[in-house]
Amino acid sequence: MTISLRINGERLHRRIAHLAEIGAIAGGGCARLALSDADKAGRDLVCGWMRELGLSVAIDAIGNVVGTRAGRKPGPVVMAGSHIDTVATGGRYDGNLGVLAGLEVIATLNDAGVQTEHPVSVAFFTNEEGSRFAPDMMGSLVFTGVLPLTSALQTRGIDGSTVADNLARIGYRGDAPLPAAAPRAYVELHIEQGPVLDHEGVEIGVVESVQGISWTEIEIEGTSNHAGTTPMALRRDAGWAAGSIISFVRDLANDFGGNQVATVGRVEFFPNLVNVVANRARLTVDLRNTDEAVLKRAEVRLAAHLDALRQSENVDIATRTLARFEPVPFAPEMTNRIERHAKAHGLSTRRMPSGAGHDAQMLAALCPSAMIFIPSVDGISHNVREFSHPQHIEAGANVLLAVLCELAEMAPQEPKS
Amino acid sequence: MTISLRINGERLHRRIAHLAEIGAIAGGGCARLALSDADKAGRDLVCGWMRELGLSVAIDAIGNVVGTRAGRKPGPVVMAGSHIDTVATGGRYDGNLGVLAGLEVIATLNDAGVQTEHPVSVAFFTNEEGSRFAPDMMGSLVFTGVLPLTSALQTRGIDGSTVADNLARIGYRGDAPLPAAAPRAYVELHIEQGPVLDHEGVEIGVVESVQGISWTEIEIEGTSNHAGTTPMALRRDAGWAAGSIISFVRDLANDFGGNQVATVGRVEFFPNLVNVVANRARLTVDLRNTDEAVLKRAEVRLAAHLDALRQSENVDIATRTLARFEPVPFAPEMTNRIERHAKAHGLSTRRMPSGAGHDAQMLAALCPSAMIFIPSVDGISHNVREFSHPQHIEAGANVLLAVLCELAEMAPQEPKS
Repeated sequence: MTISLRINGERLHRRIAHLAEIGAIAGGGCARLALSDADKAGRDLVCGWMRELGLSVAIDAIGNVVGTRAGRKPGPVVMAGSHIDTVATGGRYDGNLGVLAGLEVIATLNDAGVQTEHPVSVAFFTNEEGSRFAPDMMGSLVFTGVLPLTSALQTRGIDGSTVADNLARIGYRGDAPLPAAAPRAYVELHIEQGPVLDHEGVEIGVVESVQGISWTEIEIEGTSNHAGTTPMALRRDAGWAAGSIISFVRDLANDFGGNQVATVGRVEFFPNLVNVVANRARLTVDLRNTDEAVLKRAEVRLAAHLDALRQSENVDIATRTLARFEPVPFAPEMTNRIERHAKAHGLSTRRMPSGAGHDAQMLAALCPSAMIFIPSVDGISHNVREFSHPQHIEAGANVLLAVLCELAEMAPQEPKS
Repeated sequence: MTISLRINGERLHRRIAHLAEIGAIAGGGCARLALSDADKAGRDLVCGWMRELGLSVAIDAIGNVVGTRAGRKPGPVVMAGSHIDTVATGGRYDGNLGVLAGLEVIATLNDAGVQTEHPVSVAFFTNEEGSRFAPDMMGSLVFTGVLPLTSALQTRGIDGSTVADNLARIGYRGDAPLPAAAPRAYVELHIEQGPVLDHEGVEIGVVESVQGISWTEIEIEGTSNHAGTTPMALRRDAGWAAGSIISFVRDLANDFGGNQVATVGRVEFFPNLVNVVANRARLTVDLRNTDEAVLKRAEVRLAAHLDALRQSENVDIATRTLARFEPVPFAPEMTNRIERHAKAHGLSTRRMPSGAGHDAQMLAALCPSAMIFIPSVDGISHNVREFSHPQHIEAGANVLLAVLCELAEMAPQEPKS
């Protein structure tokens, strides 16, 4: 028996707008850095909503919050979730959407008097953004047991204070067990934060995997020379070598094709003067692919290019890995489910990787997990101009509702008394 | 009749070392920014030496100093010269060598009791380096009438004070006529400040010309995007466009060959983050050639590359000319003379352009001018590690002596009484 439940879009938009008032900044964005006073106020608001909706709220020692609606049976929960912390000049949708859409699912189940076989939870994880404390996705890393609680608690932020002190200060160091018990499944609705869905006019992104990330810092040491008096053949130009790497990584991405992306976003020259051949240059290379084997091949090709530069330009090159994550594939049973429900709602879909990191990639180690993307206008995110159309938000929340109901084995609706 | 005069190397080295004590900085270098207290002390020392050597010292309103040894006839002088101001972390040879070798020539003529047909002068020009006041070569620009005195005097330096105030403060605003009367000829001995002579083991560089200079600042405007979520085809990457320009100018220089040099020494990315496609990049291109037609061709090729980038990457590109000087050829009669005398002294020679700017290029507008280069070890200059071997300094000063004697029509030596 199928029951066609639909979320209440107006109520969801109202909650999004309400939460966005906390830490509001000019241009319609939010500044709620993890464990700040603004984050505490946001948490208090969301926890209040959870309790109003009848959820039992559990807080663990890293401040992750899980609100649970009981099922007919105890046991593993079906979980929706995301995060409510933001970057310093963030938007109002990144993270918040997944949490508030989860609450809207709960509200819809409540309104309809639906009972589910398995409990349904809505979670928000601490410090997903990593703007104040490194690493990002800290809460879900501890939740899944990948990062030890003690080391997370000792982490010092950009202002020198620790995670432990801030958790105590805002009253969000709880005692729910860590690592957490494995959910039955995890589903995260999120804005794409990229331009693909908007560009292609597709309504729902079925996220098959999170790209693997390889960040390398490259430092080149050449010789500082007068730009007028030094013949080209006698140069050891660290700046030119940097330019060669910038060109190389673009060629590499085009050559590999598929979802390979490659970016040099940061460059510094020394002494950085118009008429002096740079003796030193520092730059970063960001390589991403959903296929670990291909990502490794990209790293090997980059290393070979650096070797060639060492020879041809006679420069010294040192490299340092800033970050390295393997790709995380999501369970096909989950992605197929999302795609099927989206199509059943008459929505256009596209399978795609996530180029950014999300809590779902951590949860994937615990249970079948997946993500639902909705379009970000112009792909803009981490910016006050971040925007997603209301109808896309509602569409994403309805897909989330349908997927959670199926996973939780929603029982036939009983007549209200 | 030929008289084989030779300079006194020991005396020349002593004067170089003595002048280097003024404004001395760690590592054996000098800091005597134009019109500073250190510059005044250096000027006082050199003017004292001029007077000891019997020269009549004239100072003009921009502070250029010319010490003249009378000839048998009045009329245009044969002039040696350079500058004694330094960059903030300069060496002891740049500029100083040409002035002090000029004084050594005078001392040698005095010792030998030589009379010349034409007067011989030694000049030092104000603010050649331009480190404190722009433009560089200010003194010789005013000396030759290219830059109006009033605009030079009003120039404000990096500390906000004017050239006029500083000239008055240090007592070097004189009344010798400006623009100056044209000398008969001008010869400037200078360290190469590049690696060519040292690299090739050649003792004397016969400078045929000063390279033309074209400095362009390029600002590229693209779109800031997430490095993970933005497919390559949807990017407007200002950083990649900058890298492409860095690669392009190297290819351009190699393609043109000859003395074409091309350098990107300064680059800035915005926001300059590892995982953000740069929305803005600013860089400079320094192009130099001794042939104005070729230099113009290089500029046209660069402009065409920027047009291609505007199309292919869909970025906006604005350019601004920071500096543009045409090449200055030296008179063949002068370069031939230098080469002949160097060879007569048994020295190896090489014809070459000057990649850096010098007062001689301004004087070339007034009279036949030329430069003599000696090797800079490893091409290092504008650096406390600047060094030239004593024997090369002596060789250069002896060539200067021979050239000045010939130009001044040295009379046969008369027996000393």
